[in-house]
Amino acid sequence: MQSVALKRIALGVSYDGTPWQGWQTQPSGQTVQDQIERAIARFVGEPLATICAGRTDTGVHALNQVIHIDSPVTRDNISWVRGVNTFLPDSIAVQWAQPVSEAFHARFSAVSRTYHYIILNTAIAQPLWASRAGWCFRPLDAELMQQAAHHLIGQHDFSSFRSSQCQAASPVRELQALKVWRERDFVRISITANAFLHHMVRNIVGELVLVGQGKHDPDHVSAVLKQRDRTVAAPTFSAAGLYLAQVEYPESLLNIPAATEIEDLLLI
Amino acid sequence: MQSVALKRIALGVSYDGTPWQGWQTQPSGQTVQDQIERAIARFVGEPLATICAGRTDTGVHALNQVIHIDSPVTRDNISWVRGVNTFLPDSIAVQWAQPVSEAFHARFSAVSRTYHYIILNTAIAQPLWASRAGWCFRPLDAELMQQAAHHLIGQHDFSSFRSSQCQAASPVRELQALKVWRERDFVRISITANAFLHHMVRNIVGELVLVGQGKHDPDHVSAVLKQRDRTVAAPTFSAAGLYLAQVEYPESLLNIPAATEIEDLLLI
Repeated sequence: MQSVALKRIALGVSYDGTPWQGWQTQPSGQTVQDQIERAIARFVGEPLATICAGRTDTGVHALNQVIHIDSPVTRDNISWVRGVNTFLPDSIAVQWAQPVSEAFHARFSAVSRTYHYIILNTAIAQPLWASRAGWCFRPLDAELMQQAAHHLIGQHDFSSFRSSQCQAASPVRELQALKVWRERDFVRISITANAFLHHMVRNIVGELVLVGQGKHDPDHVSAVLKQRDRTVAAPTFSAAGLYLAQVEYPESLLNIPAATEIEDLLLI
Repeated sequence: MQSVALKRIALGVSYDGTPWQGWQTQPSGQTVQDQIERAIARFVGEPLATICAGRTDTGVHALNQVIHIDSPVTRDNISWVRGVNTFLPDSIAVQWAQPVSEAFHARFSAVSRTYHYIILNTAIAQPLWASRAGWCFRPLDAELMQQAAHHLIGQHDFSSFRSSQCQAASPVRELQALKVWRERDFVRISITANAFLHHMVRNIVGELVLVGQGKHDPDHVSAVLKQRDRTVAAPTFSAAGLYLAQVEYPESLLNIPAATEIEDLLLI
């Protein structure tokens, strides 16, 4: 029997995924969810479950992961941020907090997710980017990669880019945007979809990298997509370059701080 | 008795200092020097001692640390780079190698060292910068910090900015350049001297941060310098934001790849 009125709170969380075994709770306790739930429990005084927008894998980072909790206590928005952060390690920090209605659900209310991928494209590896970017030492042609990317836009069966571990009921997703561009020694990728299959971004990046190296024509991606067979596509690219950047919700449910401000912090 | 002619080789090394207990070899083996000497030994087939330009502390990074070795084997420059890197962890990588004369010494031939310091100046901590930047949540005025910095230029007794652990024979150093500027949410500092005392950069940064917060006037730095007393200056600032960026040698001894190219890699 629930004797206390619970308030639903949405929180934005950023993290360096390097030291953690992904988002989802594990018996080891070495996951982002474990660390956040432990910190919230210490701040609130009792354990509360968290729901997130996107369950990131080991080594994957987040600029603005969105989670929600149902809290028996009332706190100012800034108190949630500062209070929970007091109990978090340096590699995880709450960025904002807002009360939301019971109609809001961090996972099911999300209308789209945007991931960023950073590829370091230098002949010699750069240690300061080892956990922050994928690395390709062969020269990449970002324009060819962008041409290939166009073939993936729209609603498709993404079985060719889906991990064998993927538990989603359907392999169909709607890819809304996929941009590839060069910034000095980096090739950057931004990808938005209603939702993603397991390893979908890293498998798409792996394929685009082969195109960028000239090993496949841009049209090859279209053939791979049509075959709906994971074994015909490129290997999964590194987790290190992947960032959950932004989650979008209907305005009536949540207005989250502009992602561009948070993105600025990633790239000085 | 030396039966093999040794060749002196200079190498440029970059590293993420986060996982290491500084440069200098320790019984634990968990230092950058230990890792590099182990990798060189595996590449060359026998142990070789390394000498570096600047012994960085725990958590301090390097964009272009310079070291030298005396090698019994001859290899192409690029083979040194690729060969040694094969045996290094991702957080350390050789960037270039060049044969040098016996007159070259990585430490004693250096005419100046340049360090960069990055301060993240945001109200909320940013996990992706936790090991890459110092953090100050109070607003900083970079112009006041630059005014304070002018007082430190030139040859001075830097006892007020010297760690009690410092083993240098003299506290006098010549500070050749000290620039402070803002880039969006970051305050950046670049500092060049003939050589540095232990913790000298981090102690200077600590003092400049107090000026930037308005806790001291810019002139206060001059008073602190004149007192030659470590206890009157600010606490040592975080190691996380410190980067050994560049070492300069007489052109007759070594021409190292332009530091600007390497700096570009730090900041996308």
